[in-house]
Amino acid sequence: MESLMTTAQLETEAAIEVAPRDLANAIRALSMDAVEAAQSGHPGMPMGMADVATTLFTRFLKFDPGAPDWPDRDRFVLSAGHGSMLLYALLHLTGYPDMTLQELKRFRRLGARTAGHPEYGHAAGIEMTTGPLGQGIATAVGMALAERMQSARHGDGLVDHHSYVIAGDGCLMEGISHEAIDLAGHLKLSKLIVLFDDNGISIDGSTDLATSMDQPARFAAAGWHVQSIDGHDTAEIAEAIERAKASDQPSLIACKTVIGFGAPHKQGTAATHGSPLGTEEVAAAREALGWPYEPFKIPETILMAWRGAGLRGRQERKRWEERLAAATPDARRCFEDGLSGALPSDFDETVTAVKRRFAEEAPKLATRQSSQEVLEALAGALPNLIGGSADLTGSNGTRTSGYQPVSAECFGGNYIHFGVREHAMAAAMNGLALHGGFIPYGGTFLVFADYGRPAMRLSALMGLRVIHVMTHDSIGLGEDGPTHQPVEHLAGLRAIPNVLVFRPADAVETAEAWQCALNEEATPSILCLSRQGLPTLRRRHITVNSVALGGYLIRKVKGDRDVTLLASGSEVSIAMEAAEQLSAEGLQAAVVSMPCWELFQRQSPAYRRAVLGAAPRLGIEAAVRDGWDRWLREGDRFVGMQGFGASAPAPDLYQYFGVTVDAAVKAARDLAG
Amino acid sequence: MESLMTTAQLETEAAIEVAPRDLANAIRALSMDAVEAAQSGHPGMPMGMADVATTLFTRFLKFDPGAPDWPDRDRFVLSAGHGSMLLYALLHLTGYPDMTLQELKRFRRLGARTAGHPEYGHAAGIEMTTGPLGQGIATAVGMALAERMQSARHGDGLVDHHSYVIAGDGCLMEGISHEAIDLAGHLKLSKLIVLFDDNGISIDGSTDLATSMDQPARFAAAGWHVQSIDGHDTAEIAEAIERAKASDQPSLIACKTVIGFGAPHKQGTAATHGSPLGTEEVAAAREALGWPYEPFKIPETILMAWRGAGLRGRQERKRWEERLAAATPDARRCFEDGLSGALPSDFDETVTAVKRRFAEEAPKLATRQSSQEVLEALAGALPNLIGGSADLTGSNGTRTSGYQPVSAECFGGNYIHFGVREHAMAAAMNGLALHGGFIPYGGTFLVFADYGRPAMRLSALMGLRVIHVMTHDSIGLGEDGPTHQPVEHLAGLRAIPNVLVFRPADAVETAEAWQCALNEEATPSILCLSRQGLPTLRRRHITVNSVALGGYLIRKVKGDRDVTLLASGSEVSIAMEAAEQLSAEGLQAAVVSMPCWELFQRQSPAYRRAVLGAAPRLGIEAAVRDGWDRWLREGDRFVGMQGFGASAPAPDLYQYFGVTVDAAVKAARDLAG
Repeated sequence: MESLMTTAQLETEAAIEVAPRDLANAIRALSMDAVEAAQSGHPGMPMGMADVATTLFTRFLKFDPGAPDWPDRDRFVLSAGHGSMLLYALLHLTGYPDMTLQELKRFRRLGARTAGHPEYGHAAGIEMTTGPLGQGIATAVGMALAERMQSARHGDGLVDHHSYVIAGDGCLMEGISHEAIDLAGHLKLSKLIVLFDDNGISIDGSTDLATSMDQPARFAAAGWHVQSIDGHDTAEIAEAIERAKASDQPSLIACKTVIGFGAPHKQGTAATHGSPLGTEEVAAAREALGWPYEPFKIPETILMAWRGAGLRGRQERKRWEERLAAATPDARRCFEDGLSGALPSDFDETVTAVKRRFAEEAPKLATRQSSQEVLEALAGALPNLIGGSADLTGSNGTRTSGYQPVSAECFGGNYIHFGVREHAMAAAMNGLALHGGFIPYGGTFLVFADYGRPAMRLSALMGLRVIHVMTHDSIGLGEDGPTHQPVEHLAGLRAIPNVLVFRPADAVETAEAWQCALNEEATPSILCLSRQGLPTLRRRHITVNSVALGGYLIRKVKGDRDVTLLASGSEVSIAMEAAEQLSAEGLQAAVVSMPCWELFQRQSPAYRRAVLGAAPRLGIEAAVRDGWDRWLREGDRFVGMQGFGASAPAPDLYQYFGVTVDAAVKAARDLAG
Repeated sequence: MESLMTTAQLETEAAIEVAPRDLANAIRALSMDAVEAAQSGHPGMPMGMADVATTLFTRFLKFDPGAPDWPDRDRFVLSAGHGSMLLYALLHLTGYPDMTLQELKRFRRLGARTAGHPEYGHAAGIEMTTGPLGQGIATAVGMALAERMQSARHGDGLVDHHSYVIAGDGCLMEGISHEAIDLAGHLKLSKLIVLFDDNGISIDGSTDLATSMDQPARFAAAGWHVQSIDGHDTAEIAEAIERAKASDQPSLIACKTVIGFGAPHKQGTAATHGSPLGTEEVAAAREALGWPYEPFKIPETILMAWRGAGLRGRQERKRWEERLAAATPDARRCFEDGLSGALPSDFDETVTAVKRRFAEEAPKLATRQSSQEVLEALAGALPNLIGGSADLTGSNGTRTSGYQPVSAECFGGNYIHFGVREHAMAAAMNGLALHGGFIPYGGTFLVFADYGRPAMRLSALMGLRVIHVMTHDSIGLGEDGPTHQPVEHLAGLRAIPNVLVFRPADAVETAEAWQCALNEEATPSILCLSRQGLPTLRRRHITVNSVALGGYLIRKVKGDRDVTLLASGSEVSIAMEAAEQLSAEGLQAAVVSMPCWELFQRQSPAYRRAVLGAAPRLGIEAAVRDGWDRWLREGDRFVGMQGFGASAPAPDLYQYFGVTVDAAVKAARDLAG
């Protein structure tokens, strides 16, 4: 059917008058049918929000299926990702080329673009992966922020678009939603518009079972413009969106809807949420909706009206391209380079200069301080690097001398005070990266990676370049005690696929870790940095980035090794000292610094074998052993933590928990003997 | 000094009139002095909230330092745990015997009761471990809920107390606070009173940098009673607490305070938050506060007035004891048994009966369904078992036939609809366990362990018996796709110290896992359960609990093994089938079921060696390899996941990712060959 219509025809037909309800019913029918075909999925939300989505996509959303990556498009985020068929139906109906009818029929099958929840990268028009509730709304805050920040840099002519979110009760119950709306309200992100699917139903039944929240009042408390409307009344929906766009605050539109709208016996109940309606109910819904067509069949008039809606943005996109073309070459290059994410040509030189200085000056610095010095050098070289911290700026060393806070009054800033909101920070960083134009880094204590973990997992799944600066990375944190001392976090983060966990040993490795992290365009990085001062171990400057190897011999020995000490971060200097002592005893101890296991794993088996050697091995890390046995064999030993830390000055803790040069020497001696 | 005063003297002296400001200044002085002595800590909050805390402890809080565990005491939670000196000072001043002046002088030293953040179990009067922001307020919701639920069971005569929380800006910025206050408002927990230290300062500086939230409006939207007061005006504080107690809603009292109150040059700034004031500023503060005494010196009149306040609750406690003594023997036993946490004498029999039935009937059930059947049997036997789910009740199998939802109208219920709030659920479970009287279990999908992780970590650190029912534990979840499929979560959770991660292989192991989890009084458990049906492997009934061994031979071989297959959960049946096929090929394959690594680690090395055997090993788990190398040696193999999952029917995914009998047979054959 699709091949029958040319663009020219569609443009002509765009004027066809089809009732909005019929347009919406196309979404309902496709959603029911796809879920039925898959025998799995969530029909209730797409059917309930079909009228809202139809109004948004046919009258407001600025997009062009022919140029889905058009930088100035409006962003649409389906925070309630289980309603994925809503999005897939919209993409199909509006004419995104890769969202064919065939894909809808393959909903939830292996390899389909139409995954159970929208997966970023599976099809054009999917702005992010959603499904874990609350992530969409929080990530959209990052997108809306990116829009304002880009606009401040490049002007409204090039950057002037909205971010729309459809969120459900679940999204708004999740804690991350609070962090996100507080941040958005504070920053007056007026181009963020949240359409709340206020259907009063969650999986367990009526939302009355679990919540009595007055959502509009709550959003108003956070500085949002709020409206409550009938989500099945097209005129109300349109007027509400108009008002939201006119507001100078972020907007919530609570859309009172009936979940599973159109399914006569199940609508308004949890039964429509997460299961196929069943043949009978689907038939009854077709009857009730006045939709006599067979499964997956969209009548041509309706499809043409939808395709016409898909063409609405084409002219606007062309005008935008003309404006871009009319910009000065500098302005254009600046804009396009930022979006490309490419690093400036002198990037490596910049890092190398810092490395050289570190090697020459051999400072005793905490790696969080080294990191700050690296950032100081990078900030000038990378105008798209955007920093921030979850209210630990001084501790994390995330602020540079060019610090200019981002605020509602100044989106031209380069530093975001995320507040005590690790989770929203991680999600907003994802949004900044997804939007394009920025490379975000954000700081907190390593132990609080736990608070941001769901969003960090999504960074990994989506393959985003976001950089977490996580300081105070062990018992070396000292007096704040076990609640603030990570012991299991390195293991927990290393287990997440597609994440690089860096734990540099000194200033030089810290610079190299930053270099690696920035070079990884499709992988998030976590820099685990010490609170305590560490000696510079790498005092001979080399241009080559050793951290990029993941693990390498930082101390070689002449002849055969008696023992190999493996360590990361602050424990490498312990290993080095131990090796010296062992050497004095006539034992040949090699030391392997392992700043990034994932990168080490990427090296050839031959390289890894050569580095690890055949001698007995001792792993040293002020953390639990979990994961270390990948590098240790039966009979090898480990010096580290057995459980949680304690509150005391850091040197006392290292002593108390036995993560010391003495313990390493003794263990190595036993192994070598 | 303490030894100079007898209780009798104190009771006489209790009437001594000391100005509230002087009482509060004792807290300020001790806080300054302890932080100064430690050269580390947070003086700002204790100094700012001293007036509020003084009013609360001297006039309202129901407690008895002579009987700190008195079940009907008010609970006091310092959610802003960095202000630990506030709590320590209060405990010392009111006369908790183990909070000596010596302990205050040892603030933040190794082994002191006065850890950097309050640590549960370090000293009487510390109701929970706090420090990670937002945890205190959310856990207190669980405590306040426990109080209402206990009261519904045992009457107001035995259970009728308040839960007070001091929370800071950070606590209220964290997402978990949203989940907690929504839940508390919904349940109308009117005996929960939150004193918000509204000082407008966070670590980065003014809270204006990051938030514009109207906190009272926000709490009002959640159904709370709200007040805003001057936090340095004793009369206002007292009146506000009176009104809060009289309200039929949970209460927020926003106390406008000056952080570091009394430090003339630093008060009202972030400089007082997390660092010693310094000798000069401490001296100036002494001057400004009119506190001429030497460090750690509390004038006797003031100390005696404080000690008198500490005696306020003694008579009330005695009257309560009389009421308990006057209760019927049954009522008393019921109350005391519940608090003791002891399992009923027929507990083991109850589990054994379920196990026997499973072994005999050999059902093919998902372990989430087996778990539900176990719960069905346990619910009757364990009246203190309280269930719930984060809005996945049907999927988690957490509901039993005796289901009675807890609501504001019925606290006598046994099931909590936690809403889509995994984090608050985990924290509230901690609160239920800390309060005493309940053994909580709560359900969600395993992948969403990430959302609750900070609270789960605290359960482990505090040593609480809480049981997480985490279903859909692998790619076996199927169509919902990678956002919902845990692959790294087993590794991530196993890395947390003092947590038992169970992944039972069949119905029998599921019953045994529940038995183990309930028997662990000081360790949280996580039951990782399958979505998909699994055959019953253990068809010969034995009374002994094999899961308690952590790992055991579920398939032995005659003579020498050629290979050992190690697996957990749903992959044990794959291992068993593979072993059968290998046997047909003449290869002797033993199978080790490893439902709980932590328990296996607790066994003797000899037992572990015997189970693991000397033959080549193949690990099989539909998850990443991280951690598995603890059991695998060089040359051993692993069949599992390399990265994130995908959206498709579960059997297709097992096939696609190669977690199959065929793959196991092939790998085992290679190993054995």
